[in-house]
Amino acid sequence: MARYAASIPVRFAEIDRAGIVYYPRFFHYFHIAFEEFFADRVGIPYHELIDRDRRGFPTVHAECDYRTPIRFGDVLRVEITVEKIGRTSVVFLYRLRRSAKAPVVAAEARITVVCIDMDSFRPVPIPPRILRTFREYVEKPARR
Amino acid sequence: MARYAASIPVRFAEIDRAGIVYYPRFFHYFHIAFEEFFADRVGIPYHELIDRDRRGFPTVHAECDYRTPIRFGDVLRVEITVEKIGRTSVVFLYRLRRSAKAPVVAAEARITVVCIDMDSFRPVPIPPRILRTFREYVEKPARR
Amino acid sequence: MARYAASIPVRFAEIDRAGIVYYPRFFHYFHIAFEEFFADRVGIPYHELIDRDRRGFPTVHAECDYRTPIRFGDVLRVEITVEKIGRTSVVFLYRLRRSAKAPVVAAEARITVVCIDMDSFRPVPIPPRILRTFREYVEKPARR
Amino acid sequence: MARYAASIPVRFAEIDRAGIVYYPRFFHYFHIAFEEFFADRVGIPYHELIDRDRRGFPTVHAECDYRTPIRFGDVLRVEITVEKIGRTSVVFLYRLRRSAKAPVVAAEARITVVCIDMDSFRPVPIPPRILRTFREYVEKPARR
Repeated sequence: MARYAASIPVRFAEIDRAGIVYYPRFFHYFHIAFEEFFADRVGIPYHELIDRDRRGFPTVHAECDYRTPIRFGDVLRVEITVEKIGRTSVVFLYRLRRSAKAPVVAAEARITVVCIDMDSFRPVPIPPRILRTFREYVEKPARR
Repeated sequence: MARYAASIPVRFAEIDRAGIVYYPRFFHYFHIAFEEFFADRVGIPYHELIDRDRRGFPTVHAECDYRTPIRFGDVLRVEITVEKIGRTSVVFLYRLRRSAKAPVVAAEARITVVCIDMDSFRPVPIPPRILRTFREYVEKPARR
Repeated sequence: MARYAASIPVRFAEIDRAGIVYYPRFFHYFHIAFEEFFADRVGIPYHELIDRDRRGFPTVHAECDYRTPIRFGDVLRVEITVEKIGRTSVVFLYRLRRSAKAPVVAAEARITVVCIDMDSFRPVPIPPRILRTFREYVEKPARR
Repeated sequence: MARYAASIPVRFAEIDRAGIVYYPRFFHYFHIAFEEFFADRVGIPYHELIDRDRRGFPTVHAECDYRTPIRFGDVLRVEITVEKIGRTSVVFLYRLRRSAKAPVVAAEARITVVCIDMDSFRPVPIPPRILRTFREYVEKPARR
């Protein structure tokens, strides 16, 4: 199984009144990791997928377990793997750590996206080139 | 069972490159509804709970099903009910509609929060006054 | 001169690491006030202006003086007036107070927008109906 | 004169209903560049300045000229120089380009910050080590 991790610094503005990162923002970090994954591993920058290829991957289900608060100054490590691939949909797993070397997973998410045609907003089969990359990141069941 | 719904206009800025509301922002809308619920129904503005009472409700689990995209110009209706109450935790259900009269639920979420002491960041029992209000919003199992 | 003020609650998430509202967000509040002004006074919800009339008002210059920090729990009053109207551009003035009755202006901004055609992104004359409303809000020079 | 530039990718979420980056977000990019400048050049990560040294630099004045819209997919170059240094305040200049090699400045900003004690929120002299770095980035008047 191939592995991918993005490095994302927590910014001054991303803190809420409790002094920790606001919980919806974790999903923003996952999307940033997803954008980086597209550019780095699929080889299609996400904006080209949308603007040129007219394909997109909106989210139809998202869930996250929050275990450890994260703070301004953390440089997060966000790992992406694939749990399951359908004809038009994919389930991604995200594991977020507070730093590159943090032994503990601070948050873990499962996000289901559907490949759509950006003009009709209807589901379409995942393009073969993208599918090929997704398959390399499928996680072996034993690891969970 | 008591009922509560907040009305939240979608803003010009809350749209992503696909022209629809960015999916993490739904969780922001749920939190806004939660803040309004505290002021309107619990009778304690959420900032007073934090600043004066030193209590907070960080999220430990969040999940959402996205069924219909929402757009700039929608004035959302976000309904809050309670699924389950523990000693220190609560599970809230959120149903989001694209307008006050929309027959269809556009997104549905389940969010688990834990009552903490803001100084120690440790779980503490939910204060009785808050608990009393939460109980009024517990959803009858048959409704789901 | 007509007057307009929007009421905007500061949310839990809008705070930065210093515990006060993040300074770029003031411009977001000004835009929210601008959206409300369009719906309430011009009589055209801003999303209809864009989606149906294909007109928009992007910002070409923005400046703001920050005098008093604002905090979670404040319900801001944002006043809008017009300083100057050109053929395709308008200069708006915004005054932000920490509450409806706060005697002090916490932030004051001057924002220049240009009316554009949303398809060509080129400047076009401000439509007469909108122009008429803008003129009612022109501030008398003596007031500053 | 020393030079500094940060590289900042525009994200999927940072677009508004007009399909371009929302104008308040430019100030967020300037702040990100400011945070990177602190870590890279001053040698004090900004969160340590706040959490350990109890110093911060809130904004008291901000202004920006927007010349060219920026879009999802741009990898911005944000250059920082210093226009003026006072005892407790500094005026920074920011020039933002749509890419590292873009010949045109897409936005130009002047932002005045004041050094404060994070406990009292009162102005204090800029610490010598920080002052020394700021001075290296003062722009020669002729360049503007």
